[in-house]
Amino acid sequence: MLMGSHATNNVERRLKELGLTLPGPAAPVAAYVPYVMTGDLLVVSGQLPLGPDGKIDAAHRGKLGGAIFNEAGQAAARVCALNVLAQVKAATGNLDRVRRVVRLGGFINCVPDFSAVPAIMNGASDLIIKIFGERGRHARSTIGVAQLPLDAAVEVEGMFEIEV
Amino acid sequence: MLMGSHATNNVERRLKELGLTLPGPAAPVAAYVPYVMTGDLLVVSGQLPLGPDGKIDAAHRGKLGGAIFNEAGQAAARVCALNVLAQVKAATGNLDRVRRVVRLGGFINCVPDFSAVPAIMNGASDLIIKIFGERGRHARSTIGVAQLPLDAAVEVEGMFEIEV
Amino acid sequence: MLMGSHATNNVERRLKELGLTLPGPAAPVAAYVPYVMTGDLLVVSGQLPLGPDGKIDAAHRGKLGGAIFNEAGQAAARVCALNVLAQVKAATGNLDRVRRVVRLGGFINCVPDFSAVPAIMNGASDLIIKIFGERGRHARSTIGVAQLPLDAAVEVEGMFEIEV
Repeated sequence: MLMGSHATNNVERRLKELGLTLPGPAAPVAAYVPYVMTGDLLVVSGQLPLGPDGKIDAAHRGKLGGAIFNEAGQAAARVCALNVLAQVKAATGNLDRVRRVVRLGGFINCVPDFSAVPAIMNGASDLIIKIFGERGRHARSTIGVAQLPLDAAVEVEGMFEIEV
Repeated sequence: MLMGSHATNNVERRLKELGLTLPGPAAPVAAYVPYVMTGDLLVVSGQLPLGPDGKIDAAHRGKLGGAIFNEAGQAAARVCALNVLAQVKAATGNLDRVRRVVRLGGFINCVPDFSAVPAIMNGASDLIIKIFGERGRHARSTIGVAQLPLDAAVEVEGMFEIEV
Repeated sequence: MLMGSHATNNVERRLKELGLTLPGPAAPVAAYVPYVMTGDLLVVSGQLPLGPDGKIDAAHRGKLGGAIFNEAGQAAARVCALNVLAQVKAATGNLDRVRRVVRLGGFINCVPDFSAVPAIMNGASDLIIKIFGERGRHARSTIGVAQLPLDAAVEVEGMFEIEV
């Protein structure tokens, strides 16, 4: 499905059109690696909304429904998605090798009565679909969690099918 | 494993025997798709306990250990599982193509001291095993979360091996 | 990648060198199975820090940032990892058949302001890397959750690539 499409789709060009620059791939915050390939599946570790300086902006820390407003949460999800893509780039060398974004997992740091978690995660999903088009349409699970590493507002993990 | 078994197993018949009707596959509550196939794996997005009217019954909203009693939580998990199956049906056209239910992920919306989350998730697992028998025996992770989309009591995601 | 390496790596020997004994594989606490193989992927259900007696030591129950100190949390994560490995052993018969630890998912039972969840999960990751070396380097997502089965402090799930 969608095979051969990378001849006519240039993801890097699309990133430029959208005015987006991928950050450098973030080093894991602990003892693991940022991605693993198995067969043609690429599994990307949960990524935090780390900025270009490798730190989480204060606006992207804290709980939705608490210190963080929805717009900031969506922006944080978007930064997470860019960090996921930075790992995919590091893993593949060429984002055009992505045949399909299989799944994103979205973890939203929130207070117990904040149920608008899908809207926050759309910050990540919308960006991925904007960049990849049809092959960016992914399965997804979004949950509201008690806490995240470094008090990040959002964490996003990914699974991709890669042309090998 | 279990190959060729679909000649002698008819999942739809089993559903009827159990008096179960699959709902229509639910539209995602946000910007993503309900399932993605990669190789022979089918990844199903987290499904909520949406009823036939596409809404979550009040009895299936809220937190276990809070507003929701265990029986209602198990019923919600069961509805989630039916919604997962509705997606599998939409993806495969024929539930007999399921070679194995690989994994269910169960997310239970609960108060911080509610530790009976496995019993709630059994509402989903028991139903899947009842429907699929041996090939329904799945790996599973269940966690209690701070909040879920639309204040759902339960969310269930799935991974299936499909005969392609 | 890393193919043939099991001729020169003996995981069981490494376990002995580290003074580690695998527990018997734990029975699931509910209606599911502890692992499923699909293709060359082994999916292991979320494992709790069950001790050799099949119970969770009081020191490994409760919330990080609450009743549980960090050292106990890391120890709990380590026990979870051993229980994951016990399932891999049961599934494969021989841990040398593990070609790659693909992913660990870490769920940390914590109070809402406990953000050091990666350090806790390192109890599991460090052990896996110590045992498997290069092929133990895994992708990972760690989240802080509202509650876990049996009030466990930590739950760890895994995905492995197996030589079939």
